[in-house]
Amino acid sequence: MTDFNWTRDQFHIPQGMIYLDGNSLGPLPKMAPARVVEMMERQWGEQLITGWNASGWMAQPTRVGDRIARLIGAEPGHVVMGDTLSIKVFQALAAALRLNPNRKVILSDSGNFPSDLYIAEGLIDLLGNGLELRIVAPEDIEDAITEEIAVTLITEVGYTTGRKHDMAKLTARAHKMGVITVWDLAHSAGAVPVDLAGAGADFAVGCTYKYLNGGPGAPAFIYVAPRHAEVAQPALAGWMGHARPFAFEQDYDAGKGIERMRVGTPPVLAMTALEASLDVWDKVDMADIRARSVELCERFIAGVEENCPQLTLCSPRDADVRGSQVSFKFDNGYAVIQALIAEGVIGDFRAPDVMRFGFTPLYTTDKDVDEAIEILTRILRGALWDKPEFLERKAVT
Amino acid sequence: MTDFNWTRDQFHIPQGMIYLDGNSLGPLPKMAPARVVEMMERQWGEQLITGWNASGWMAQPTRVGDRIARLIGAEPGHVVMGDTLSIKVFQALAAALRLNPNRKVILSDSGNFPSDLYIAEGLIDLLGNGLELRIVAPEDIEDAITEEIAVTLITEVGYTTGRKHDMAKLTARAHKMGVITVWDLAHSAGAVPVDLAGAGADFAVGCTYKYLNGGPGAPAFIYVAPRHAEVAQPALAGWMGHARPFAFEQDYDAGKGIERMRVGTPPVLAMTALEASLDVWDKVDMADIRARSVELCERFIAGVEENCPQLTLCSPRDADVRGSQVSFKFDNGYAVIQALIAEGVIGDFRAPDVMRFGFTPLYTTDKDVDEAIEILTRILRGALWDKPEFLERKAVT
Repeated sequence: MTDFNWTRDQFHIPQGMIYLDGNSLGPLPKMAPARVVEMMERQWGEQLITGWNASGWMAQPTRVGDRIARLIGAEPGHVVMGDTLSIKVFQALAAALRLNPNRKVILSDSGNFPSDLYIAEGLIDLLGNGLELRIVAPEDIEDAITEEIAVTLITEVGYTTGRKHDMAKLTARAHKMGVITVWDLAHSAGAVPVDLAGAGADFAVGCTYKYLNGGPGAPAFIYVAPRHAEVAQPALAGWMGHARPFAFEQDYDAGKGIERMRVGTPPVLAMTALEASLDVWDKVDMADIRARSVELCERFIAGVEENCPQLTLCSPRDADVRGSQVSFKFDNGYAVIQALIAEGVIGDFRAPDVMRFGFTPLYTTDKDVDEAIEILTRILRGALWDKPEFLERKAVT
Repeated sequence: MTDFNWTRDQFHIPQGMIYLDGNSLGPLPKMAPARVVEMMERQWGEQLITGWNASGWMAQPTRVGDRIARLIGAEPGHVVMGDTLSIKVFQALAAALRLNPNRKVILSDSGNFPSDLYIAEGLIDLLGNGLELRIVAPEDIEDAITEEIAVTLITEVGYTTGRKHDMAKLTARAHKMGVITVWDLAHSAGAVPVDLAGAGADFAVGCTYKYLNGGPGAPAFIYVAPRHAEVAQPALAGWMGHARPFAFEQDYDAGKGIERMRVGTPPVLAMTALEASLDVWDKVDMADIRARSVELCERFIAGVEENCPQLTLCSPRDADVRGSQVSFKFDNGYAVIQALIAEGVIGDFRAPDVMRFGFTPLYTTDKDVDEAIEILTRILRGALWDKPEFLERKAVT
């Protein structure tokens, strides 16, 4: 059983803050600064170039990848860290398309994070070979998976409403139709149990700065199913993905399995900060996280609906199809979010009218939820959000 | 006049070590750990998501890019940080090819760093439209720049011998022939004066973990000439390169100028470490660096040639065509480098027989050079390198 009192104590939450934005940027693991300083001073400082082997920097991307693998139901040895999520989307999508060369449609949905769509557009534009990006409504995606589709590019949990797709079901349908799947786990990893191997997912990618608390700009991960690992082409064919990077050969020879998805020199500092968070994650059971997440989300929904009738729930009411966040629509949502932030309750806003709150059992308590509801209620009743200082602020993240 | 006593004091060199490998991984700036901790604790820890604006994380890639711009002769506002060098090579090459769509040959040379060639191979393989990567000897590259060539992909200073191409001359020839140039500055930035604007370079890329001391896996940079900045397509079309990333629009609209070469969420921790080094670089004149670099290299060449007749200089003897490193060939070079490392002199080895030494005026002194020569001489005379402990070790980086 996961000890959530212990996990909460592992993260720094600023005094007086109720942080409901861990779905955007997770908080600082208390051990992370010391861990990074140790890496900088004892490894980089003292070992210098020899740190690549002496401190295991070279193997860090797969070592860390294996720790993520447990959280997303991936087979060990099939996840590697590096780059950013957008880059990993590009790699996965390009590799997936190569596995289905006779089809010309990439299927995604309008609930996908825009960067995934932009990357797909950019790849299509680059290839110039008649590929099409087809975007349907999230609820229509299942029917849209037909024999015409080459690859699905779907984010399991949508960033605005937290709507959660059924990965197993959609993957099964995709395979029946001869379609390759690319799953974006940005709002899934550390948020909901994921079973990539069980679902038979082909490719998956995700970031580590949200629920996984790796810090701003923390590295991304990529998963390639074992059955594709030795045939998938990395598209971004960097030296770290070469079978023998230090032989400095002139021709590219893709490395073994997931290693080929490495590109350039790994980001050791950033991955070291992430490791401090994974020290906590290693002691967490995703089933426990899920149970607490559902409790927290439902507590929040019930409290807000009881006290704030102005707001309309736009996340799924059914926990089975919802990730670890809750969103409400409100015309003046932007100003209300600003007023909440001013009162120490950190949620965020997504245009045009979505107020978004992330629930992260590692460090969010029932008391946080209750206080957030209370403050939100007070703001709405007192129309505190209607003051010029909130209405004038510019939307940022 | 650059104060090299002061600059040396800004870096941590381990007790008793003579570090001649700053061309591979620069040493730790003494201020970097405190700087990173401050960012982690006060920014990430206290500001959390608001740090993107409150601490200027969002603008960090261009802010840092401008500090690099000064060192490479780029126009302000035309360099942006992010990703790794291999990724930036991909972006620059893909964008350059789009500017010359009717030609089918990418020209590089056999002295280029293999990852650049791999990335080119990977891009060609991905595009599948009949592009060819033509690799000639470095000394033949000028003549090989003909009207058949679409893009040159050249590393200004070669990683093995430190051979330096004439950027201005080759760029002029390229333009005369209607060729777009991509310059890799991995061994140039912080090593030799670079004048991208003066040379009329089209694209340039580089890393920051070598002479710029950003730490293992520090982010890369990319330069796009002002005349191309508003037309170049980024190929990796991530949300941070969008004109309005936080509007979360469905269609990609490339951002203004160099901003479009941003891809995913910027690596704030790693860039913060780099900033500590740039605090030193801001007080450095590249002309002073160059003058000291030439002195150090020539002192080393003279001393080694006088005392170690077994070794054969394979770097250019003429400083005008040499970067900031010196390489010697020796059949047992690998074992000798191991013996040197055991004695605290850190150089490195590149197969099959190249012993490579980097000279970095920020922290390398005449005394370092003299002692390195003395130890190398002693090793060769005493055949210390011939001991099993050196012969048995495996080559690593």
